[in-house]
Amino acid sequence: MTVLAPRGFVASATAAGIKPDGQLDLALVATEDARPVPVGAAFTSNLLAAAPVQVCRAHLTASGGLSAGIVLNSGCANAATGSEGRRAAELTCELAARALGVRPEHVLVCSTGTIGTRLDGDRIEAALPSLIGGRGSTPDHAAAAARAILTTDTRTKEVVVEADGFVVGGMAKGAAMLSPNMATMLAVLTSDVSSSSQALHTVVSSAVRHSFNEMTVDGCTSTNDSVIVMASGVGPEVQEEALAEALTAACADLALQMVADAEGGTKVVRIRVVGACDGGSARRAVRRVAESQLVKASWFGEDANWGRVLSELGSAGTPFDPDRVSVAYGPVTVCRDGVAVDHDEEALRKVLGSKQFEVICDLGLGGGSATMISADLTPAYVELNMGRS
Amino acid sequence: MTVLAPRGFVASATAAGIKPDGQLDLALVATEDARPVPVGAAFTSNLLAAAPVQVCRAHLTASGGLSAGIVLNSGCANAATGSEGRRAAELTCELAARALGVRPEHVLVCSTGTIGTRLDGDRIEAALPSLIGGRGSTPDHAAAAARAILTTDTRTKEVVVEADGFVVGGMAKGAAMLSPNMATMLAVLTSDVSSSSQALHTVVSSAVRHSFNEMTVDGCTSTNDSVIVMASGVGPEVQEEALAEALTAACADLALQMVADAEGGTKVVRIRVVGACDGGSARRAVRRVAESQLVKASWFGEDANWGRVLSELGSAGTPFDPDRVSVAYGPVTVCRDGVAVDHDEEALRKVLGSKQFEVICDLGLGGGSATMISADLTPAYVELNMGRS
Repeated sequence: MTVLAPRGFVASATAAGIKPDGQLDLALVATEDARPVPVGAAFTSNLLAAAPVQVCRAHLTASGGLSAGIVLNSGCANAATGSEGRRAAELTCELAARALGVRPEHVLVCSTGTIGTRLDGDRIEAALPSLIGGRGSTPDHAAAAARAILTTDTRTKEVVVEADGFVVGGMAKGAAMLSPNMATMLAVLTSDVSSSSQALHTVVSSAVRHSFNEMTVDGCTSTNDSVIVMASGVGPEVQEEALAEALTAACADLALQMVADAEGGTKVVRIRVVGACDGGSARRAVRRVAESQLVKASWFGEDANWGRVLSELGSAGTPFDPDRVSVAYGPVTVCRDGVAVDHDEEALRKVLGSKQFEVICDLGLGGGSATMISADLTPAYVELNMGRS
Repeated sequence: MTVLAPRGFVASATAAGIKPDGQLDLALVATEDARPVPVGAAFTSNLLAAAPVQVCRAHLTASGGLSAGIVLNSGCANAATGSEGRRAAELTCELAARALGVRPEHVLVCSTGTIGTRLDGDRIEAALPSLIGGRGSTPDHAAAAARAILTTDTRTKEVVVEADGFVVGGMAKGAAMLSPNMATMLAVLTSDVSSSSQALHTVVSSAVRHSFNEMTVDGCTSTNDSVIVMASGVGPEVQEEALAEALTAACADLALQMVADAEGGTKVVRIRVVGACDGGSARRAVRRVAESQLVKASWFGEDANWGRVLSELGSAGTPFDPDRVSVAYGPVTVCRDGVAVDHDEEALRKVLGSKQFEVICDLGLGGGSATMISADLTPAYVELNMGRS
């Protein structure tokens, strides 16, 4: 049920012909009664923000953070498309708003796909009646919407978190150009709580920081990243902390699903840097390791190349003492105080051979720690990204 | 003749058994009469500096910047090897110094290969007599030394620059873990000029900044990077500018040879960012593009994916206006003022199909510019780096 697990929402999907192969490429998540409700949102930090991101920002300002629905398309990012692209995004909102009986600023829009190609407004215009008319609240509606936003993803990403007295549901897409602040990713989350847009804005920012911003696939920051949470208000008011906790859990689950579906990826690796001077140093160091081509290639080869890990830690631009650093793969320490240590080779092979494992780097300097989730770098990733796209 | 092109030097190479396959793995470049002469040097900024880098720094301080020779080994980086690694590097210098009749601080040492494995001092001790005894000044001696420092390189990197009244020669290695400040690279340069270590230090720093620090293969900064220039003093004193120019030309030539031999690489791409607010912004933006996995994969596919280039420029953390940016591949402009422009597809295919081309990004903001040389990211790069190494 995912985005439809919380009460008060409907969803829909259709094939608008944006993707050439006739697959679902247009989705809607809206309130059941087309009533604008409080939303919180976080967008890409990329200065090349796509047209839909620009339009969302403007609409949230104009509406005071209220929205009745979100239209999402795959197959075209509508980024680097200038004023024509902005008009196409605005047109999408206007048409959907008219059909829903709300003002254009009460509709948000998200796009994902290739950068630099024109979004065909005519196709969206032609497809909107069936999108709006087809909305409903069955599991099939939720599943179709989750499928319609995929690009190179090989599977849908959905989540439901049942909290005390309320529910958070979500769907997302993302498989590459994935590096925080945030990732090439769209995520729509819903909840039945009663909340305000201000409160939602606060909790979504914090949830993103502790989920999507702690993963990377390739260190590339997309132009379209959008995370939007809508609260239908059908359910109770809850403590902000409880909502933040449930929303963070939902986002972290979706983030893990994205890394697990990383383009060409075969492994999910959680990197932990502990013992850093402070949190900022730890975050910088952990990102350096998580984004290292050489380290990521070694994971693919199931090679415990801790020398490359050390080399990244030493060049992260943060305090580092070569005589104090230790590295472990899961429970197997392979480097202590900066040099190789004897270890159980069989246990190490087992860790590296599994689909998901941890690399723990202890800098031995202080109390700062940070975590990131990353994927291995494989020939398949290169092959998926070399082509005309 | 390369390192032996300038008068006053000898070279030698032997197989010490550090590489398991019996290939040449130990090289020497020394002054003809074993006289300590002024040297200038630049080393890695990685805080995990390998033992040989630590020993070089100490020896240059102790000797006042004078050196009679450099011993270089491939097959083992002698990095992350603790105090035992430092003793092995010191032992190498002591044994070579004794044989040459100089003090240990008059010998420098460089290593390249796998991080974290022990350098076998016994093998070096056993091989040094033949290394020292075999030195000579023929082209064969120079060629053998250039070959003995290679690791995953597929060919030797050598250069000769004939300047007005003096000569600069050089040899280098490096094919991955290549990103400035500096690269996984060793470079030994020689000249017949009369100079001081202070002057050489100044010119080598400037030459490195405008050559090795303007290239990248994978964004990884090695633990062993060393660039050392020796001046025999057989020739004349020259203006510092003339020496800087010749040395920069020699280093830039070697840097280009490295990128052309990048692990798995099929293309050399020169990225130029112009129109940036200032030089610092330009350097940051050009590095972001040059190190982008997605951009590099598109080069391999000969795909003019300028959207990815724009996305990197927009997330480089420097001033960027999406409505002012232009991107060209060679003479073919594909994006102007942030949007796609019609262009000659045939001409574009020709540019992308060549082994070497330029990507020019005009930010349209100011006068700052910067250049980097990079290679494409290929499945072969991943395959070369996945294995137990």
